[in-house]
Amino acid sequence: MSKPTPLFNRLALIGVGLIGSSIARAARAQGAVRSIVATARSPATRKRVAELGLADQVVESNAAAVEGADIVIVCVPVGACGAVAKEIGPHLAAGVTVSDVGSVKGSIIRDMGPHLPKTAHFVPAHPVAGTEYSGPDAGFAELFVNRWCILTPPAGADPKAVDKLAAFWRLLGANVETMTADHHDLVLAITSHLPHLIAYTIVGTADELQTVTRSEVLKFSAGGFRDFTRIAASDPTMWRDVFLANKDAVLEMLGRFTEDVAALTKAIRKGDGETLFEHFERTRAIRKGIVEIGQDSPAPDFGRPHPDLAHEPLPKPYAAED
Amino acid sequence: MSKPTPLFNRLALIGVGLIGSSIARAARAQGAVRSIVATARSPATRKRVAELGLADQVVESNAAAVEGADIVIVCVPVGACGAVAKEIGPHLAAGVTVSDVGSVKGSIIRDMGPHLPKTAHFVPAHPVAGTEYSGPDAGFAELFVNRWCILTPPAGADPKAVDKLAAFWRLLGANVETMTADHHDLVLAITSHLPHLIAYTIVGTADELQTVTRSEVLKFSAGGFRDFTRIAASDPTMWRDVFLANKDAVLEMLGRFTEDVAALTKAIRKGDGETLFEHFERTRAIRKGIVEIGQDSPAPDFGRPHPDLAHEPLPKPYAAED
Repeated sequence: MSKPTPLFNRLALIGVGLIGSSIARAARAQGAVRSIVATARSPATRKRVAELGLADQVVESNAAAVEGADIVIVCVPVGACGAVAKEIGPHLAAGVTVSDVGSVKGSIIRDMGPHLPKTAHFVPAHPVAGTEYSGPDAGFAELFVNRWCILTPPAGADPKAVDKLAAFWRLLGANVETMTADHHDLVLAITSHLPHLIAYTIVGTADELQTVTRSEVLKFSAGGFRDFTRIAASDPTMWRDVFLANKDAVLEMLGRFTEDVAALTKAIRKGDGETLFEHFERTRAIRKGIVEIGQDSPAPDFGRPHPDLAHEPLPKPYAAED
Repeated sequence: MSKPTPLFNRLALIGVGLIGSSIARAARAQGAVRSIVATARSPATRKRVAELGLADQVVESNAAAVEGADIVIVCVPVGACGAVAKEIGPHLAAGVTVSDVGSVKGSIIRDMGPHLPKTAHFVPAHPVAGTEYSGPDAGFAELFVNRWCILTPPAGADPKAVDKLAAFWRLLGANVETMTADHHDLVLAITSHLPHLIAYTIVGTADELQTVTRSEVLKFSAGGFRDFTRIAASDPTMWRDVFLANKDAVLEMLGRFTEDVAALTKAIRKGDGETLFEHFERTRAIRKGIVEIGQDSPAPDFGRPHPDLAHEPLPKPYAAED
């Protein structure tokens, strides 16, 4: 099938990390835009983006990036979005759509909204996708395929601009859902923010033990621990900002989680096998649901590779007697 | 290279779930034993083991299984091992090696040891490997390759028997380490038991929320939550037994984890970005270490598959103006 007519003429990407560079790759692969202009704060990143050929043009300032763009996507950590909005506000073309990819939406609306002109369509977005790697080399065009992108248009947003941004994300392979920023922040607090905080915590706990060495933690991590280390390897700046920006919802979920830990701790202390079994039985259904709707792989172990068995020579003294 | 001379003549497997059936497949693939006899508590499992051809012989009782075996591996949940030892004790051949695969070792020595005759070599073992699936169909020959198998021989164990069991596990692809049962239980409490408990907890927490629906939890699980659901889908009976059997070490690790959660909670509440950043920066190194020693895949997202982008027709009204 031939590629579709571009949705937008000129996409300006501010920030080209894992998400920004994946948008660039996917938008180009899908012919979603006619041209891409990109910028990044660090000269090293701008150089790398140019080397990778991720954009038609790499510029040095945010103001220059948005000149003549009909879509601007801000792909920097949540805590930096307000300052970017302030910088680009005066340079935005009339009718431009301004969006972002932040994992918190209430703070984005609060921080960016006031700096954007009335002639811009502000439609915050959050593609729920990512890996544990960061930077322009880490992105890939397929990152958003079959993942959800949540739009949280503020009250009074132009429905046509919202629909067009939704069409853009669908073209990049995502499913799109619209909700309020407050509800988004509550949903993500449990499906993303709390899991990251818990993973960061337990990896830290393991690293501080005196009785178990780090070498032992690494060697025997296949017992479950290694699953936590993946998300605890995510970008520290991004995640610091998320917890600061979504404080209330995260604290709410942390409170509930802490209560539940206390209940299971009590069951262990009392030797209450029945309570443990009932709890463990119930959680299986959630995994099944996630696999069924295609949000995770049914392959054992996430489909991690298992090397073949080698036939090595057997040490003689141990052979079975004939 | 030709297959090695078998290490043992007759392997008796008591319990043929994920681990037992993987041992059967790997032992056969590697020619580690001359023959395999298997048994399982449920007639359905025995029937399935026979259908899959996992053993040379499938018998109905534990006593019958161990007759004439020179190695017996008990592959049932930790809480059931004592009763199995009592049953097989009187039927064990002199010089037999008796082992297990339990995730807790202190309780195994306490529960099984007293029932085994002095003429048997009792060498408890724990292959630190597994997937979220259970049962004889879930096993595969490569499960133990490059994973660690921990042996915890009780004081006075015959070094030759220990070495021979180590050779068996190496033949199945595992690395072998020997330590005391107490130390094993502490190491596994942090690398396996606590991660499972936390995963079970958070999945339960998510499922009980009134403000976020189950459908939302499933849809947006790619934000991190889905990583936890894999280990929270592990066998409930096995895990109930683990927490009851390793109570002290698990409570110790839970205590430390709870303190660390409280510290990060406080940092969020106070808006202390510096503490959060420092913590998140530190945990990255652990992931790197695990990948470097080959205990996890460096592929993003555990190597989960990402479907290709499809070029779908673009809805007309949204195309860019020429």
